[in-house]
Amino acid sequence: MLNPDRYFDANPIRRDIARSLYEKVAELPLVCPHGHVDPGMLAVNERFPNPAALIVVSDHYIFRMLYSQGVPLEDLGIPRQDGGPAETDPRKIWQRFADHYYLFRGTPTGCWLKHEFADVFGVHQTLDNANAMEIYDQIEACLAKPEFLPRALFERFRIEVLCTTDAATDTLAFHQQIRESGWRGVVLPTFRPDACVNLLASGWPSEIARLGEITGQEIGTYRGYIQALEARREFFRRMGARATDHAALSMYTGELTEAEAEAIFARALAGTASEADAHLFTGHMFMEFARMSVEDGLVMQVHPGSFRNHNAGIFERFGADKGCDIPLATEYTRNLRPLLNKYGNHPAFRMVIFTLDETTYSRELAPLAGHYPALRLGPAWWFFDSIEGMTRYRYATTETAGIYNTAGFNDDTRAFPSIPARHDLSRRVDANFLADLVARHIIELDEAEQMITDLAYYLAKQTYRMEDIRLHDPLHA
Amino acid sequence: MLNPDRYFDANPIRRDIARSLYEKVAELPLVCPHGHVDPGMLAVNERFPNPAALIVVSDHYIFRMLYSQGVPLEDLGIPRQDGGPAETDPRKIWQRFADHYYLFRGTPTGCWLKHEFADVFGVHQTLDNANAMEIYDQIEACLAKPEFLPRALFERFRIEVLCTTDAATDTLAFHQQIRESGWRGVVLPTFRPDACVNLLASGWPSEIARLGEITGQEIGTYRGYIQALEARREFFRRMGARATDHAALSMYTGELTEAEAEAIFARALAGTASEADAHLFTGHMFMEFARMSVEDGLVMQVHPGSFRNHNAGIFERFGADKGCDIPLATEYTRNLRPLLNKYGNHPAFRMVIFTLDETTYSRELAPLAGHYPALRLGPAWWFFDSIEGMTRYRYATTETAGIYNTAGFNDDTRAFPSIPARHDLSRRVDANFLADLVARHIIELDEAEQMITDLAYYLAKQTYRMEDIRLHDPLHA
Amino acid sequence: MLNPDRYFDANPIRRDIARSLYEKVAELPLVCPHGHVDPGMLAVNERFPNPAALIVVSDHYIFRMLYSQGVPLEDLGIPRQDGGPAETDPRKIWQRFADHYYLFRGTPTGCWLKHEFADVFGVHQTLDNANAMEIYDQIEACLAKPEFLPRALFERFRIEVLCTTDAATDTLAFHQQIRESGWRGVVLPTFRPDACVNLLASGWPSEIARLGEITGQEIGTYRGYIQALEARREFFRRMGARATDHAALSMYTGELTEAEAEAIFARALAGTASEADAHLFTGHMFMEFARMSVEDGLVMQVHPGSFRNHNAGIFERFGADKGCDIPLATEYTRNLRPLLNKYGNHPAFRMVIFTLDETTYSRELAPLAGHYPALRLGPAWWFFDSIEGMTRYRYATTETAGIYNTAGFNDDTRAFPSIPARHDLSRRVDANFLADLVARHIIELDEAEQMITDLAYYLAKQTYRMEDIRLHDPLHA
Repeated sequence: MLNPDRYFDANPIRRDIARSLYEKVAELPLVCPHGHVDPGMLAVNERFPNPAALIVVSDHYIFRMLYSQGVPLEDLGIPRQDGGPAETDPRKIWQRFADHYYLFRGTPTGCWLKHEFADVFGVHQTLDNANAMEIYDQIEACLAKPEFLPRALFERFRIEVLCTTDAATDTLAFHQQIRESGWRGVVLPTFRPDACVNLLASGWPSEIARLGEITGQEIGTYRGYIQALEARREFFRRMGARATDHAALSMYTGELTEAEAEAIFARALAGTASEADAHLFTGHMFMEFARMSVEDGLVMQVHPGSFRNHNAGIFERFGADKGCDIPLATEYTRNLRPLLNKYGNHPAFRMVIFTLDETTYSRELAPLAGHYPALRLGPAWWFFDSIEGMTRYRYATTETAGIYNTAGFNDDTRAFPSIPARHDLSRRVDANFLADLVARHIIELDEAEQMITDLAYYLAKQTYRMEDIRLHDPLHA
Repeated sequence: MLNPDRYFDANPIRRDIARSLYEKVAELPLVCPHGHVDPGMLAVNERFPNPAALIVVSDHYIFRMLYSQGVPLEDLGIPRQDGGPAETDPRKIWQRFADHYYLFRGTPTGCWLKHEFADVFGVHQTLDNANAMEIYDQIEACLAKPEFLPRALFERFRIEVLCTTDAATDTLAFHQQIRESGWRGVVLPTFRPDACVNLLASGWPSEIARLGEITGQEIGTYRGYIQALEARREFFRRMGARATDHAALSMYTGELTEAEAEAIFARALAGTASEADAHLFTGHMFMEFARMSVEDGLVMQVHPGSFRNHNAGIFERFGADKGCDIPLATEYTRNLRPLLNKYGNHPAFRMVIFTLDETTYSRELAPLAGHYPALRLGPAWWFFDSIEGMTRYRYATTETAGIYNTAGFNDDTRAFPSIPARHDLSRRVDANFLADLVARHIIELDEAEQMITDLAYYLAKQTYRMEDIRLHDPLHA
Repeated sequence: MLNPDRYFDANPIRRDIARSLYEKVAELPLVCPHGHVDPGMLAVNERFPNPAALIVVSDHYIFRMLYSQGVPLEDLGIPRQDGGPAETDPRKIWQRFADHYYLFRGTPTGCWLKHEFADVFGVHQTLDNANAMEIYDQIEACLAKPEFLPRALFERFRIEVLCTTDAATDTLAFHQQIRESGWRGVVLPTFRPDACVNLLASGWPSEIARLGEITGQEIGTYRGYIQALEARREFFRRMGARATDHAALSMYTGELTEAEAEAIFARALAGTASEADAHLFTGHMFMEFARMSVEDGLVMQVHPGSFRNHNAGIFERFGADKGCDIPLATEYTRNLRPLLNKYGNHPAFRMVIFTLDETTYSRELAPLAGHYPALRLGPAWWFFDSIEGMTRYRYATTETAGIYNTAGFNDDTRAFPSIPARHDLSRRVDANFLADLVARHIIELDEAEQMITDLAYYLAKQTYRMEDIRLHDPLHA
């Protein structure tokens, strides 16, 4: 059922080239420098509970689409914050998913699921209301086997390195447990301090308290706060981290004086910080995190422009990450100037920028990345981590920035069994893009062969400074 | 001259699939849930005056293009507001149109005209300066025949339902006349209250007076104004309306207190309302109209982001709708939040949003429609009601929202004889889009066959709650 | 090595049509209405110093890409403002360029260079670190020959007319020298007054002083300033200029009263003008330059939306035009309204607008150009003067504005030997676009044949009012 030429253009010249390029990289190990897999899953290595929990309940890409057509989240087993009733029968959840599976036609989720069903679980039918239970049983039977334990899948997927995303205050106990287990899979943390930076978030005071505890010092001043963050970065770095990650509503950057920063921080501790304070502080902390990156070598990733929890009712009832984060128009040219002017020419600094505003690819981001040595463009993100999204990204950025100012692929997922499908799709899309350039005699075939390998594997490793990591498997030795 | 494979990609695999998909829907009746056909035309059912009046003088898509190349609107017979001289000889107008027909190469107007000439009037030549009078005569001969009367064309076009757009204060006398005529064509009104909402429009006071007259109550307060609008909606609903329609410069929504709304309304009645008042009031009325839609079930359409009458000189000399409405960048994520947070999860509410800012397809609208159950995306609108415009729309929205959060096609036209051409073009573009997905093995052929039928017919009916309406013709019985 | 079908789609139907269309225009003379070639080069007509100086050091498209990957500009021989050390050995610069040549894969610079190497210098290998010196020698040998002198290349390139871009205060001595030399090449100046308009630029006072000197009157008042500019325009016009050119951060236009303009001008002379003053003055001067264009017939070009010298460190060390100008989102609908309302309907006025914000093609610029008679859309500019950039431009603008509201091609380059490559690429892209329309039966082949000739040649001549100029060569006679 998985067509070997899937996602390639129907033109036979281009398709043949695309296939030959894809085959060069189809078996390369997976480099996963950014994502949201739970490290606890690989630390405890227990069996996945059931197909619905694994595939539906944990994946907001899936349940948001059913919700958009009127299926209540409770009916899909999404737990309520208030402990109110939600579906607990995984078969009923699965049936509802199957009843609405047609909604995913033409979506990347549809493509990933098809690949995952076939390649991971041996399911070769299209899920529908009639075969729902049969397929449920088939997946359930898989999950009961040892070769479907998380670490076994990790190895089967040929993941060379998997980076998680972890709060600045995380003890990294699961990462420690993985390291001490003797298992050879490489799982690395990523430093994400957002909860310590967003002064107005309801959880900020408790996060600052936690930061104090874990660094063994009370955080009473801005200076102490900075020192605590630096200490946590050092800990993450020693635990193998190669990067940090930062989110914000806007990409505004700008340096405050020490006195201004102290004053805002004091107001935040006192619970009197304003919106303007939070905006200025976030912009200032981008400058600070860039400085720290220059000093400690962690690659600085920024994911700006998502209006989180847009649907207040859903957020109250179910919490964050429920499929209601909506992009905003995002400005980079003016906003990044203070940061890039101070650090963008520094050979030790590397910044990877993502966007949910595709208009900035060709207008702002490719011109910036095609000039500043420190800047790399992250791959097409979130809604654009898709066949058309990635294709638009390549056509919009390559002419100005080339491919060597882009950061390779990352899967950015919490849906662990979809990881191979996502890398496969990306490799196919890039092969198809390059095949178009070869077919139109814009590049030569031998150039495309180097480029597809760079896009599928080396650029991610080089961007995230992971050249030292190699997959421990016989194929790759 | 009308190639059966027109608008399909040249790749033979894709073209064959596109043709087979198109053939599935080519003969389906036309569902027209939004447009600007004059109901009086179908009420009185008189012959069209002449080719120039029918095709040139009434269609701003056409005369704006000639104007852009220096042809004065007077020379095309556009009547002046001041009664000044304008061309009255339809043959001279037609000749000027023919002289500049080459300007429409590569435009949707060019495609529609070619289809309309061939299929409606049997004209199979390309119009030019030499054959202008010959073609004029050929069309003129058609118009004199009974089978070219408006109702005869309506039936020949196989229109299942045609919705007009009508001021809130319209008596719907023509709709009444159609109903009482015994003719079986289904022509329904749509409630468009903009003239009652735009506080600063020069016609607002008289429109409010008219609203008072037609509802039999003086509109002295905001409360009375709301009651009058509700009464009119109820009247429209009883006359068969399924939807309302709203335009605004921006998509801002936000609720005022009753006291604030009363105060602004009072200032407007006193002629002292400010720009800020008008902006806030429009945003508030969006909230009110959403509430009313929840209550009465009318589907709420919004067409924001057009800067009307951009060319002040043309507006003064010729009035509105003269081809000088220019789009504006439009923001939806923040602006729609108040409305969607209050009503977007309500099962009784349905909102159809249009845009003239294509950047919002993938950045804002598809993510919103892919989450909120109440929201559907209207089809590619106005300048984008075109081969490339619709194609970009599908590629930009489907991956995030699927096709089932879109509203199907509507022709949005006042050019009655172009209606079949517009639906045909849309069906071909959608078939060609789906064929690409099939050719690249993103969806299966049987899925595409369901999807093309949904896109061409069912989605429009279902979105606008018209499942009860069926075309009264033998083919469809 | 130069494939005759390069840049054409791989579909054989479309490719065959594209080739046949391209062949119709491949040998047409080059019309160059806007660019940055140094007129001194053609006035003195001396040999080019060496390959590195000709191709690398003078082309910021090239050295910015190497800089983005960490190559210091000093190492590429870019002279420092402070006279500090920079590489002076052209062979070392060339070797560094060759070492990084792979960065240009998939970029227009890569395409132009390949064409230029092959067609101008007979180099048919892909430059790399191994063959760098061999290719250097080959080009160096060419440059020593008389047929590689600037005027000889101009004739070989079959340039019908080449417009330069010249400061309002330029004496046009080189243009005078060319005229008086008896050489028949047509090289015309373009009036660019930006340095006289940007009140806050550090060079403004000296530029105003220069303006006073060259017009023989001290510029003490706004009125005098306007008269001086008008005098310079008249001088440029007599020297053959057909157009003016204007840059600004935004497209804001708006008229000041004479008193307001005088007051701002006085503050500027006193060194006390504010940012707001400069913004208002620039908007006002757009109105003034439009008025002057109505009066003297010079075509008004505007290139807005580039944030110049974004990288302050590079600007300080190396000066302007070093590859760090970054685009900004640009608004046209509201900003152009004052200017278009006053002059946009005037038959004597012609304005050519460019953009670095591709989102405005379909949203603002095509609707504006598809209405206002005075407005033409300039070709895809700068980062978008590329295969994909031009392709997006045509697909985004043609449906709304047609091709006859666009201005044809201009190469906008200072890289003289790349001129034929740029025109060739543009002609191929337009042929490929039209071939798609023919293959999909949107236009007929005979229509496409007229359109490709218009796009490749006549539209540029007609837009810039150059119908009187003809290439003096036997082929074209």
